[in-house]
Amino acid sequence: MKIGVIGGGQLGRMLALAGTPLGMNFAFLDPAPDACAAALGEHLRADYGDQDHLRQLADEVDLVTFEFESVPAETVAFLSQFVPVYPSAEALRIARDRWFEKSMFKDLRIPTPEFADIQSQADLDAAVARIGLPAVLKTRTLGYDGKGQKVLRSAADVEGTFAELGSVPCLLEGFVPFTGEVSLIAVRARDGETRFYPLVHNTHDSGILRLSVASSDHPLQALAEDYSSRVLKQLDYVGVMAFEFFEVDGGLKANEIAPRVHNSGHWTTEGSQCSQFENHLRAVAGLPLGSTAKVGESAMINFIGEVPPVDQVISIDDCHLHHYGKAFKAGRKVGHANLRCADQATLQAQILKVQALVAK
Amino acid sequence: MKIGVIGGGQLGRMLALAGTPLGMNFAFLDPAPDACAAALGEHLRADYGDQDHLRQLADEVDLVTFEFESVPAETVAFLSQFVPVYPSAEALRIARDRWFEKSMFKDLRIPTPEFADIQSQADLDAAVARIGLPAVLKTRTLGYDGKGQKVLRSAADVEGTFAELGSVPCLLEGFVPFTGEVSLIAVRARDGETRFYPLVHNTHDSGILRLSVASSDHPLQALAEDYSSRVLKQLDYVGVMAFEFFEVDGGLKANEIAPRVHNSGHWTTEGSQCSQFENHLRAVAGLPLGSTAKVGESAMINFIGEVPPVDQVISIDDCHLHHYGKAFKAGRKVGHANLRCADQATLQAQILKVQALVAK
Repeated sequence: MKIGVIGGGQLGRMLALAGTPLGMNFAFLDPAPDACAAALGEHLRADYGDQDHLRQLADEVDLVTFEFESVPAETVAFLSQFVPVYPSAEALRIARDRWFEKSMFKDLRIPTPEFADIQSQADLDAAVARIGLPAVLKTRTLGYDGKGQKVLRSAADVEGTFAELGSVPCLLEGFVPFTGEVSLIAVRARDGETRFYPLVHNTHDSGILRLSVASSDHPLQALAEDYSSRVLKQLDYVGVMAFEFFEVDGGLKANEIAPRVHNSGHWTTEGSQCSQFENHLRAVAGLPLGSTAKVGESAMINFIGEVPPVDQVISIDDCHLHHYGKAFKAGRKVGHANLRCADQATLQAQILKVQALVAK
Repeated sequence: MKIGVIGGGQLGRMLALAGTPLGMNFAFLDPAPDACAAALGEHLRADYGDQDHLRQLADEVDLVTFEFESVPAETVAFLSQFVPVYPSAEALRIARDRWFEKSMFKDLRIPTPEFADIQSQADLDAAVARIGLPAVLKTRTLGYDGKGQKVLRSAADVEGTFAELGSVPCLLEGFVPFTGEVSLIAVRARDGETRFYPLVHNTHDSGILRLSVASSDHPLQALAEDYSSRVLKQLDYVGVMAFEFFEVDGGLKANEIAPRVHNSGHWTTEGSQCSQFENHLRAVAGLPLGSTAKVGESAMINFIGEVPPVDQVISIDDCHLHHYGKAFKAGRKVGHANLRCADQATLQAQILKVQALVAK
């Protein structure tokens, strides 16, 4: 079976590493000449709207999937004429626009921070008056890793801010005094069977994920699964979806969804029976899902800007390096380390060792 | 770091799957147009003696390694002029010729079945008279998976047999009434540090490995490590080496060595902290070795001729498919399943489930 992937970054690369042992081949469509997934499959170097290359991809593969959600709607619609596409156009439409996403949470009675659609500075002024400060203004589309957003703390922050973010449609979100950030990685098969990995505690810095720690018997696991199930069912979703939540007052408020394998699920490569990457491929290929059970106690530390010296990373016990083969650049995700340990105490000790390399 | 691999079969493929997350790139030299490792790196399609392509490979990569031991000596010597080559020419010289191999065992006082060099039918007759029957006649070079050998049980089997095997140099081995076959996978770093995986029980059928089961606290572990250490040190070996032994009268007799990652070590992908593939690459690249400790209880079942339906293989709990992406053909190794279970009882039950698919 040959899988087409729109996007050829590290998520595509790790999909190919997981799918090759299942006998799958891969083709990646990505305009970047140095797309790091290209080492593991065919690279169609073209823009995401290039219909000639999209048609070529569709003709070559058995199905198409995505490694990012900001794929143009036209691309999805065009491909869908010729080849099965997972996740669906509808799931991508919702996930790529924060207004649609938050509105869906509201419709499904999933708690989420207060929000308002912002089409002008006047909309922003009115929404701030209603929701209050602090609040966060985010572009409705194309934001990631803290890009395309601004925290508004005082009236001075509000003035002229709509223009500052480019005068594009935005969403204002009420600030939530959360005690923690957790994510749930779910996978849903074509027949509707759904499985969940254990909730993950996430630590961000400057909007970028730094550390994910897999939990055991988290008290909010069942609630997170309930909320996530509503979304998956509503969208008749196929594949892996990540759900980010704020922990607030012992409950959860939905932050956002990602209709793809997700950075906070990278620990599953060594830390679970069947990784998020393999399970995504199983789901989209119509194969039976794999076990989401943990193996040992796991965490993931992102390498941002550069990968520490390889020999130092891999001499840490229980540490598994995942180097993306990308050029180093400030702020860029270029690799991660997964730790899989026998117990939590060891895990905490090993996290500090990896973090010491990052801090250097 | 870019690694050149002579041979582009499933061992090269699994080396690349293990090395890519370390940030390594791969180039494979293999004359076969459908070399299955080519999905994961550059494919130089050329004969192993093609000096133009060998030179191109040497210029492109940081070091060269091998996925099989029958590489022509001239190839190794040629490459060694331009680029580091692991394992060494001397290790390959010994491992590719059963006479050198057995003579080394004898020199190092490692027990091995009785043997004799056979250059003619007269040599064979004399050796049979000395060693007795039953015995096994094997070509000195190029034998694998039971090919290039014949079991001699009666005088009638001996007559004309030297010509039958092609009148090439052979080795006669006394038949050993063994109670089991075990193998030891070892890895030795450039600085001499050596690590061993737990002994593996192997079951062959028609000369082809069918089942490997990793042991726990095997009573012969220390003895196997002692024998293997002598060879590794003698050859100043770098990389993974597999040692096959017969269990005889509560001791071990060395059968053969393989200077490469080995089929009986495939279970280490999920079943150990750091797989034989990653450890081979760490060793040849001068990186620190990884832990050879087991994770759970593991076994490997080979798929010979064909891979059972993928959906059936992967719906077995604890089962990890490794499909080589090769055309199916009777007698050909085309994939394997690794089982990693919580305990031995579960493992034994799951082995039966995978074997039931193979038997169909």
